[in-house]
Amino acid sequence: MFGARCLLLALRRCSSAPCPKHTQAARLRVCEALEAQEVAGDIKVQGWVRSVRSQKEVLFLHINDGSSLESLQIVADPSLENRDLTFGSAVEVQGKLVKSLHRMQNVELKAENIRVVGPCDTLTFPFKPRERQPLEYSRQFPHLRCRTNALSSLLRVRSEATAAIHSFFKDNGYVHVHTPIITSNDCEGAGELFHVRTSDKVQERGENSHFFNVPAFLTVSGQLHLEVMAGAFTQVFTFGPTFRAENSQSRRHLAEFYMVEAEMSFTESLQDIIQVMEDLFKKATSIVLSKCPQDVELFHKYVSPAQKGRLEQMLKNKFITISYTEAVDILKRAPQTFIFQPKWGSNLQTEHEKYLVKHCGEVPVFVVNYPYDLKPFYMRDNEDGPQHTVAAVDLLVPGIGELCGGSLREERLHFLQPRLERLGLADAYQWYLDLRQFGSAPHGGFGMGFERYLQCILGVDNIKDVIPFPRFPHSCLL
Amino acid sequence: MFGARCLLLALRRCSSAPCPKHTQAARLRVCEALEAQEVAGDIKVQGWVRSVRSQKEVLFLHINDGSSLESLQIVADPSLENRDLTFGSAVEVQGKLVKSLHRMQNVELKAENIRVVGPCDTLTFPFKPRERQPLEYSRQFPHLRCRTNALSSLLRVRSEATAAIHSFFKDNGYVHVHTPIITSNDCEGAGELFHVRTSDKVQERGENSHFFNVPAFLTVSGQLHLEVMAGAFTQVFTFGPTFRAENSQSRRHLAEFYMVEAEMSFTESLQDIIQVMEDLFKKATSIVLSKCPQDVELFHKYVSPAQKGRLEQMLKNKFITISYTEAVDILKRAPQTFIFQPKWGSNLQTEHEKYLVKHCGEVPVFVVNYPYDLKPFYMRDNEDGPQHTVAAVDLLVPGIGELCGGSLREERLHFLQPRLERLGLADAYQWYLDLRQFGSAPHGGFGMGFERYLQCILGVDNIKDVIPFPRFPHSCLL
Repeated sequence: MFGARCLLLALRRCSSAPCPKHTQAARLRVCEALEAQEVAGDIKVQGWVRSVRSQKEVLFLHINDGSSLESLQIVADPSLENRDLTFGSAVEVQGKLVKSLHRMQNVELKAENIRVVGPCDTLTFPFKPRERQPLEYSRQFPHLRCRTNALSSLLRVRSEATAAIHSFFKDNGYVHVHTPIITSNDCEGAGELFHVRTSDKVQERGENSHFFNVPAFLTVSGQLHLEVMAGAFTQVFTFGPTFRAENSQSRRHLAEFYMVEAEMSFTESLQDIIQVMEDLFKKATSIVLSKCPQDVELFHKYVSPAQKGRLEQMLKNKFITISYTEAVDILKRAPQTFIFQPKWGSNLQTEHEKYLVKHCGEVPVFVVNYPYDLKPFYMRDNEDGPQHTVAAVDLLVPGIGELCGGSLREERLHFLQPRLERLGLADAYQWYLDLRQFGSAPHGGFGMGFERYLQCILGVDNIKDVIPFPRFPHSCLL
Repeated sequence: MFGARCLLLALRRCSSAPCPKHTQAARLRVCEALEAQEVAGDIKVQGWVRSVRSQKEVLFLHINDGSSLESLQIVADPSLENRDLTFGSAVEVQGKLVKSLHRMQNVELKAENIRVVGPCDTLTFPFKPRERQPLEYSRQFPHLRCRTNALSSLLRVRSEATAAIHSFFKDNGYVHVHTPIITSNDCEGAGELFHVRTSDKVQERGENSHFFNVPAFLTVSGQLHLEVMAGAFTQVFTFGPTFRAENSQSRRHLAEFYMVEAEMSFTESLQDIIQVMEDLFKKATSIVLSKCPQDVELFHKYVSPAQKGRLEQMLKNKFITISYTEAVDILKRAPQTFIFQPKWGSNLQTEHEKYLVKHCGEVPVFVVNYPYDLKPFYMRDNEDGPQHTVAAVDLLVPGIGELCGGSLREERLHFLQPRLERLGLADAYQWYLDLRQFGSAPHGGFGMGFERYLQCILGVDNIKDVIPFPRFPHSCLL
């Protein structure tokens, strides 16, 4: 996460600082100190104590400041020990960075001064030194669990993945757009909506509870707004929160989750969209693996040992594309019995998705061209038959199921208008119809659930463990 | 926005493509074509027609694809003209990139083929070629205004500013955190809240309208959640939507806006926070100016001619710091009369902020140490008196007023607990009090309104003109 550049900056910060009486110690992050070979003069490290080991001749501490999974070893004279210097306390340590004799680390900090700036009540602190707790245990402490190794690694990975996704799109010439969170469009039944109102107080005053004069919801997708922008910038993306007011007690769903969405104009083939999806997955994942290898390794070692190999396979192999019709044929020929009988015209169930991925050799599979009647109004009519389909694509991934979904959008007014009229939505989506009259290029796009993507990298089973603040049990809402 | 790297990639895309019958034309974005000096072979450019000029011997077009303010000139034989080739239509042009004889451009595209992929109904399209409309006019067409020069420049600047802010924090070792959008905490009256409910349908079924079992709001700030994370990662930031259910008919307020927020542990002085605020402003702004100079220039030339000089002054000069007490003294001594009499213990009004900035020479001014009774519970007690203050800071900026606000946070349980108890908030914020028992390092942070920041760069007067989808009139909610 930090490079030699950071270290240089840190040292420069020190050397350019005014020197009133004594030379001020350079403040280094733990990751900078761990990377340093030798530093002349005193340095200062700040962080939280992960272990205290007091011996007759020497006091050993480990300090972690969240900049890396690894902690910095502190070696001090036992006289520096004090009552507040416990596991979990916040400390500042000043001293000299010296070569360590220990084979597991390059350097250690020979402390000259240790200051406890925030003591920790170890009796009530829910975590103990060198104890590995299951993720379910940590989830009970949404305000403290980021102090554990697993969750701090997870959140560093989440931060790097966020940056990697932004970079991917920027590097490829996409304009980033903040699509509205409060909206009046529901993307045609993508799910149960959250309603946004003013307070009861305002309503009691007899004022309209609809702040915007129309019913307002939390967005379920930024797609339609992105389509507007793709009509001006050609390539656009958004990466923001989306909401579903559905049962979120499951391991697979969240009421609030992040979505990466992209739209591309002048796209006439699903293959173009498929290519971007595959590139995004492979490129962003490679960046994450190179930026925080230790954090990812922690999960692959202790949480989900099978994920490492699975992920390597995904990155190495070309993803496979099959049509929905082929998929149904494969399922019908399958030697196993499904709870839901595979049938052309029905949705693929999780059991079907799992089988398809296995059938294709445990590599990600794009399923394309779904039945017209299964998909929302904005997907492009393939004008085929008698099995009428639209140009839709879902990406199924080993261990996860559906990771991405996309389609070519219906850019032709004479297809879109009657379809919206049949659905009784022509008035609500007048602005969307409008776009089709003014230089409506063929276009398409896709969305990727960000939390599912993180599960894919780390192999975390419960989606609630890849968000910063878990909401289960519900009363944990902070 | 795009560099030589993009151009290389585009050309490589072409050369590595299979060649079925003829060589496929390299697809170039307009900005790539404009930067190219010479390209062997055919290229393809896609975009929207900004002008058509038909002469006897030659047909001139200008094509814009949103990758730059500048359009690409197309030169074609008049035989390529057709009825659908109008202003606003979406086209694909194939041909050779040649050196232009025109002094205003390097290259032009000699068209061999022009294909209209999306015609435009020019009669009803609300924008006309070479017409400059005021921003109020465009605001009526939230789904089409991104096709104008001003709004497309604005949104490119917004995209670059977003990236610059992310880079600033990443480069300085901050971990990015997605703080919750739906929350049960109201950050103590930062403003009127939006309530989040399930649908009437769900309520009619007799189910709890509180999806999370507790009243849930849209976040007004991610600060308290960031403080949790600063207790593990030392330096964290978030950059997401925040909400206020207040009158948004004004030129200065939005119901939905973006906020950049940062928290830093081991921060014992307001000066440390001030330094990050000033660095962020100067660094991000310099990046934006270097990445999209033409887009910024459009605003400085046609929308707000005074802003260019103002911005240069801000970037060149060191920001000034004064205390709230000094500020009130300056205001009391001012030769002008204020509508609100300046008085120690009262909030600074917009008229006061403007005067202070002018008094300090039209450079940004940090005002520090505000009255204890004016500020929320989490700000750190300065333990002074008789004029009791907290370690708070606001950044006032010429032409805008308050751009950032921050403080040291009260890390001491024995100060925070009685204060929350007096306010009757100790139960609601038990988790926040809890943090103070477990290695609570001194810390602080700040927030910056992203839309205000954009106004600062571009000099746009109405805040509704710097968001992708304006909501005024309210019925425009898409």
